[in-house]
Amino acid sequence: MEIKVVRKVLDVNDTMATQNRKLFAEKGIFVLNMMSSPGSGKTTVLEKTLARIMSEIPSAVIVGDICTTNDADRLSKTGAPVVQVNTDEFGGDCHLAAHVIRNAAENLDLDAIDLLIVENVGNLVCPAEFDIGEDARAVVLSVTEGEDKPLKYPLMFRVCDAAILNKTDLLPYLDYHIETTAKNIRQIHADIPVFELSAKTEDGIEPWIDWLKQQVKQK
Amino acid sequence: MEIKVVRKVLDVNDTMATQNRKLFAEKGIFVLNMMSSPGSGKTTVLEKTLARIMSEIPSAVIVGDICTTNDADRLSKTGAPVVQVNTDEFGGDCHLAAHVIRNAAENLDLDAIDLLIVENVGNLVCPAEFDIGEDARAVVLSVTEGEDKPLKYPLMFRVCDAAILNKTDLLPYLDYHIETTAKNIRQIHADIPVFELSAKTEDGIEPWIDWLKQQVKQK
Repeated sequence: MEIKVVRKVLDVNDTMATQNRKLFAEKGIFVLNMMSSPGSGKTTVLEKTLARIMSEIPSAVIVGDICTTNDADRLSKTGAPVVQVNTDEFGGDCHLAAHVIRNAAENLDLDAIDLLIVENVGNLVCPAEFDIGEDARAVVLSVTEGEDKPLKYPLMFRVCDAAILNKTDLLPYLDYHIETTAKNIRQIHADIPVFELSAKTEDGIEPWIDWLKQQVKQK
Repeated sequence: MEIKVVRKVLDVNDTMATQNRKLFAEKGIFVLNMMSSPGSGKTTVLEKTLARIMSEIPSAVIVGDICTTNDADRLSKTGAPVVQVNTDEFGGDCHLAAHVIRNAAENLDLDAIDLLIVENVGNLVCPAEFDIGEDARAVVLSVTEGEDKPLKYPLMFRVCDAAILNKTDLLPYLDYHIETTAKNIRQIHADIPVFELSAKTEDGIEPWIDWLKQQVKQK
């Protein structure tokens, strides 16, 4: 019973995601879905990323949170148009679904942008199951979260096209082996690019920016 | 449509949770449901907690993960009986449901313990919605996760009876104001006890241990 129900919800989502993908393709927009646990530093990664690419690639952001507009407030300072989705209006959803993205996108001028970044709800589980019509997915994991998370949350790392290991500025203060985390990520997803960086200090951020620019240009 | 379905799943869960609560009460067992994001240090908190209470309060653990038995391996070294639940056997569930706890508890000698700690799946959203028949709930938030998480994930902080702010050993290296986090928690849940501690160094752990012992003895 429960499985059938979940299947039906996912089928409806997939249909809507396909429509989103078609719309974004028509508009020539590359869509990146960024996912992570709460507190991994997604918003800071995004702030620093927008600051470096906005002059070259017109971008907008849809940011999902259960509550608050904190992230939208921070991101709008980059000059990018930002739409905040609060999922408590939809029962406190733990992920962004395709129909939510569609509604949010109606608040953006899709002819004016080449890149749409979706900052998903902080959750390393459920968002991985919901196609929103994106072209690529990136997961952010902070080095304070331990080495074993890729093995414990494998679906997230399997469905993503890039992984960011953030907060490397804290490495000197942790009992943590970043090579082990990278190895665990590649055990789940062999050829995924892994970017080790500190969004705070911007150390190591360039390869990530280059990767993202290349993705947008390839579309 | 979707809302009705979710309601039905939650109703079934509530019925099962009530049965669990009755069973645990008959056996005189206090049940604590521990929840957090991935990587907040739940397992380390639990290791150090068990080391300090096992001689006084016979305890067991049910630990939920989507995959791996890493946490069970770590926790079984404390001498406590540990049952690992891997939710990928139930479609990769993002939370522990009441029927899963019931099945897991069948692997424990319920006459031999006074405290059952459930380490839930790492997720700051969904586990808050599922009653498992527990007596109390605790949320662990690490200081690396930022000050705003209680406001962004309010349900978790509303339903919990205690909050642990973990990894205080990292405070010197963060732009982070722990008083702001505590204030944000109390904005959601006015009278909740907040324990600031480092599970790694054990600094500040005693008030948490005292609180837990008192809860068990009051039952």
